[in-house]
Amino acid sequence: MSGAVNFKECGSVLVTGASRGLGLQIVESLASGGFSPGKIVATARNPERAQKLQELASKHSNIHVIALDVVSQESIEKAAAEVTQLLPEHGLNCLINNAGISVSADFNTVTAEKMIETFHTNTVAPLMVTKAFLPLLRQAASRGGAGGSRSMSIQRAAVINISSVLGSLELNWKAETFNKWYPYKASKCALNMVSRCMALDLEADGILCMAIHPGWVRTDMGGCEAPLSPEESISSTLSVIGGLTEKDHGSFLDYTGEVLPW
Amino acid sequence: MSGAVNFKECGSVLVTGASRGLGLQIVESLASGGFSPGKIVATARNPERAQKLQELASKHSNIHVIALDVVSQESIEKAAAEVTQLLPEHGLNCLINNAGISVSADFNTVTAEKMIETFHTNTVAPLMVTKAFLPLLRQAASRGGAGGSRSMSIQRAAVINISSVLGSLELNWKAETFNKWYPYKASKCALNMVSRCMALDLEADGILCMAIHPGWVRTDMGGCEAPLSPEESISSTLSVIGGLTEKDHGSFLDYTGEVLPW
Ligand SMILES: NC(=O)c1ccc[n+]([C@@H]2O[C@H](COP(=O)([O-])OP(=O)(O)OC[C@H]3O[C@@H](n4cnc5c(N)ncnc54)[C@H](OP(=O)(O)O)[C@@H]3O)[C@@H](O)[C@H]2O)c1
Ligand SMILES: NC(=O)c1ccc[n+]([C@@H]2O[C@H](COP(=O)([O-])OP(=O)(O)OC[C@H]3O[C@@H](n4cnc5c(N)ncnc54)[C@H](OP(=O)(O)O)[C@@H]3O)[C@@H](O)[C@H]2O)c1
Repeated sequence: MSGAVNFKECGSVLVTGASRGLGLQIVESLASGGFSPGKIVATARNPERAQKLQELASKHSNIHVIALDVVSQESIEKAAAEVTQLLPEHGLNCLINNAGISVSADFNTVTAEKMIETFHTNTVAPLMVTKAFLPLLRQAASRGGAGGSRSMSIQRAAVINISSVLGSLELNWKAETFNKWYPYKASKCALNMVSRCMALDLEADGILCMAIHPGWVRTDMGGCEAPLSPEESISSTLSVIGGLTEKDHGSFLDYTGEVLPW
Repeated sequence: MSGAVNFKECGSVLVTGASRGLGLQIVESLASGGFSPGKIVATARNPERAQKLQELASKHSNIHVIALDVVSQESIEKAAAEVTQLLPEHGLNCLINNAGISVSADFNTVTAEKMIETFHTNTVAPLMVTKAFLPLLRQAASRGGAGGSRSMSIQRAAVINISSVLGSLELNWKAETFNKWYPYKASKCALNMVSRCMALDLEADGILCMAIHPGWVRTDMGGCEAPLSPEESISSTLSVIGGLTEKDHGSFLDYTGEVLPW
């Protein structure tokens, strides 16, 4: 069963970093699932170079490709304006902050520049993107979820931050083999904090906010040794996202729905 | 009883951000305590403007004032070279990464620039400073602690990162009143991750590494409503630091020695 089944009655979804990897897979799984959202806004920093995404969009009329470089404020604002045109009445139900980078850098090779570049893309960008799309998320939240429900869900309005288990302070301990990713670990840990701060601030509007670890997946970032295929990871991840309720607000879950320790 | 009593047999301590606030208080408490370290390296980005520190140094011959702007790699390297001259034989026993900034910014007012500037000072700088002083810390660690002991302690070699309870993901929840510090919270949370990553990497050298919350203190940063005076905070904080052992390696404690949740 495709995880996309849970996106029934979710009117619109926006995904960042949809050119390849997990972002592309999210778009594909949502588009080909039995219950596809009304509008899938697939964003990429260089849409013209995102060939697979363009092919997918040519097959599914509900996929809308829009340019969005998440580290450029100008690009964020331009994309928000375009999406406002695209979703004039119902707002945006689900924002998935997926775009991310990982530069390998251990204690000896890490530099201030690598730390800051990774923090900008993985931590700051999800915050700035969410700020820009807040009016559209609020619009969706004020309409309510399925049947006008006031409960929190992605059918109403939600911000999903794609984090990583490598951002867990608790689980980091003794994980020597992974210690070559100082910038990535610091950025995902800080993303979890941003996610929790936003959860506090978005609660009054009825907008759900949480962080999810998609598992270790065979993408350009995850590498070929990873145990999960993108289809497996995203089927399960979308299933978890689709079933989120109030109790998951401000949480850190993995792709199977398990709570991860901070 | 002054917390500095526990710095008995700690040959040398380096403090960043010693121009005012907690950094200055650390230097003062260490210098005036009954068991003062052999050498107290008090660093400040503008030593010539740090009048109180200069006055203190003129009264205590074991205080050495050195210029160190923690966000400048050039300044870090210059300071490391100077300190190497100052501590030619015994290395550095205790590095206290204290310098920090806090710009207030809530969900509406936060910008990418504020997030990055705060991350650079509070998260990246402790990492880059530690890297630069690693040879001196290793030198001290290889000599052993009191009586040549191979146990971890500040008498042997240690990196102490001044963090904050505002960096706790667990305790952040429902702390609405503090939600005007997105950049600060993200930076201290990420500092805890950097601290833990460094703990993993420095363990083989016998260098202790941990993060500590000094309490909410009346400094320029803490403001006048804070419950603790700098003397109270630092007396207790130094007492905890002075008593650290292997079991505290990689930990996050507060100024009373309590373990804080991530
Ligand atoms: N793969 C794993 O095992 C794994 C595990 C845990 C978490 N994650 C997280 O899952 C998310 C997706 O990872 P992935 O495995 O799919 O990585 P990937 O294969 O390297 O793809 C990264 C995606 O992010 C995009 N991106 C990077 N910087 C961007 C920017 N400034 N603006 C817009 N898009 C940008 C890339 O676009 P371009 O094509 O233009 O470069 C690409 O679409 C990331 O947040 C990652 O940290 C992955
Ligand atoms: N006060 C509290 O309630 C509290 C609570 C939890 C944690 N903390 C942490 O405790 C530490 C000290 O805070 P505080 O209360 O003493 O703050 P403060 O009164 O604002 O003093 C900050 C110190 O950091 C220095 N600094 C800032 N940027 C620097 C740079 N680039 N290079 C060198 N020094 C720099 C400042 O130097 P200049 O004089 O040159 O500006 C000053 O000496 C910080 O890490 C803070 O986050 C404080």
